[in-house]
Amino acid sequence: MAKPLALTSGEPAGIGADITLKAWLRRADIKLPAFYWLGDAASLDRRAKALGLAVPVAEVAPEEASEAFARALPVVATGHAATARPGQPDDNSAGTALASIRQAVKDVTAGRASAVVTNPIAKNVLYRTGFRHPGHTEYLAELAATKNSTPQPVMLLWSPALAVVPVTIHVSLREALAQLSSELIASTARIVASGLKSHFGIARPRLAVSGLNPHAGEDGSLGTEEKTIVAPAVELLRSEGLDVRGPLPADTMFHEAARRSYDCAICMYHDQALIPVKTLAFEDAVNVTLGLPFIRTSPDHGTAFDIAGTGKANPSSLIAALQLAARMAAA
Amino acid sequence: MAKPLALTSGEPAGIGADITLKAWLRRADIKLPAFYWLGDAASLDRRAKALGLAVPVAEVAPEEASEAFARALPVVATGHAATARPGQPDDNSAGTALASIRQAVKDVTAGRASAVVTNPIAKNVLYRTGFRHPGHTEYLAELAATKNSTPQPVMLLWSPALAVVPVTIHVSLREALAQLSSELIASTARIVASGLKSHFGIARPRLAVSGLNPHAGEDGSLGTEEKTIVAPAVELLRSEGLDVRGPLPADTMFHEAARRSYDCAICMYHDQALIPVKTLAFEDAVNVTLGLPFIRTSPDHGTAFDIAGTGKANPSSLIAALQLAARMAAA
Repeated sequence: MAKPLALTSGEPAGIGADITLKAWLRRADIKLPAFYWLGDAASLDRRAKALGLAVPVAEVAPEEASEAFARALPVVATGHAATARPGQPDDNSAGTALASIRQAVKDVTAGRASAVVTNPIAKNVLYRTGFRHPGHTEYLAELAATKNSTPQPVMLLWSPALAVVPVTIHVSLREALAQLSSELIASTARIVASGLKSHFGIARPRLAVSGLNPHAGEDGSLGTEEKTIVAPAVELLRSEGLDVRGPLPADTMFHEAARRSYDCAICMYHDQALIPVKTLAFEDAVNVTLGLPFIRTSPDHGTAFDIAGTGKANPSSLIAALQLAARMAAA
Repeated sequence: MAKPLALTSGEPAGIGADITLKAWLRRADIKLPAFYWLGDAASLDRRAKALGLAVPVAEVAPEEASEAFARALPVVATGHAATARPGQPDDNSAGTALASIRQAVKDVTAGRASAVVTNPIAKNVLYRTGFRHPGHTEYLAELAATKNSTPQPVMLLWSPALAVVPVTIHVSLREALAQLSSELIASTARIVASGLKSHFGIARPRLAVSGLNPHAGEDGSLGTEEKTIVAPAVELLRSEGLDVRGPLPADTMFHEAARRSYDCAICMYHDQALIPVKTLAFEDAVNVTLGLPFIRTSPDHGTAFDIAGTGKANPSSLIAALQLAARMAAA
């Protein structure tokens, strides 16, 4: 029997429980890979009842999860009760969410789970209780750090239509301009190439690197970063034997014919990468973290406090995240 | 009989002639509005023969163009011979292209044409001969200037799926950050609202304004321009009675459901606007200039020197530009 996926609870007042319950109910139809939920079984049970969903919840050990999955939604307890009501994070929200993430990393590191799939957390809730990381991904990198080094996590947005990676991520556009460097582009692209090879079965990944400026700088008349930063990174990567093209004008990289010419677009900043993928695949884009010593995927949306507990949350992105994690683990 | 559209020749070594000939050949099938081409009839005839296209070319006066359109491609002479071969701009390229633009503006201003449609020019060719404008659009604004003021031209990219306007346009991303101001956003949005009303028949245009930073600044943690620049512009516009929302996170503005909630997206910089529209509508996006005292549309591509004269050029965007210009003129 295949190893299960470890699915974190996410912020307990968010839609994590809603979409987890809905995804599990469709397990047979869509051949959902087995997962277990890391959190408070009682709170998941309460949410199921509130939503009127007939979902039996079973507390198990990770080793029992795959077998239990067909008949019940397997829960591995983290020892933290989750008391928050839907849409109303409370004092134990941060502790519950973080314990779930820590346990998922332990399980995947110890070989009890094949990959980590994370439900959305609420950074501002975590910040109130002393959390110091810029986000979920950086926290996972910290948990995966050794004495000697912290991994560079790389955010890949994956959809059947398009895969993109922003080189600079959750910083202002002004700060993205300051952070952008040939080194950052090159180290990111190497992690992407290696990740596509090991986890997506692409023997020789084709990477397309965008320019920073309109028309990729139009030969220097609309900005110089293409010449001073992007092109040197592309040259370096090519000299290392990678299949890399660029800098390409970002506005003409993402139409259908262009997309067929590469496996992943490496973009210079958040919106340059996320606009095209969310325009094309809003419901089923998956957030994949490459560069960690384990596989991690996540739905590409937030906690959606406004619809938590209402039954309106759409499980498509979580389902896509679970399926992609299983596919990556099998590759 | 409806007034014809004035279609400029564009750079004579580019694909302007190719797509004009191809568009005319489909006139009956697609009910193409009548247009006349402003340029050298002999050069257009040569291109038709080189491409093996049976297109009779007829020199006419603008007043005769609509009637002639069914049987021949009407040409209004500008008095400039165009000697350039496909893909090889020569010394008279700039003069020919500029004369065509000037005559088109004269014709539409005098009421001989209902709108101007421009074929692509090559800025670097024009620059070699002393042209000083940042581009086509700015030249048109200059031609439309009065003693007292030069109009602010606004670039609207229109497609059936999505209409977008970049507030800053052909400048580096760094310069876009420097140029962005509440005043520029507000003056742009006013021109868009007025243009959508007069030329698109939208009684109360709904405008969606993007943020500049990822997640529209995430309440200040990813940049402050939303609070200091964008939100004040939105407030000002709303106080003037316009239907304006924002700042919205740019990555979640362009999926299908989101697009239904507005008529036009006002974006902060070139790629933020052009990535989604070219991702969705690469073949048939039309470049519309609002803010001029006449209607002007243009295909959304360049001179494509590499395929000029080969028969490979796709007339879709020019056809869409001609059809949209006629629709705008009729509104």
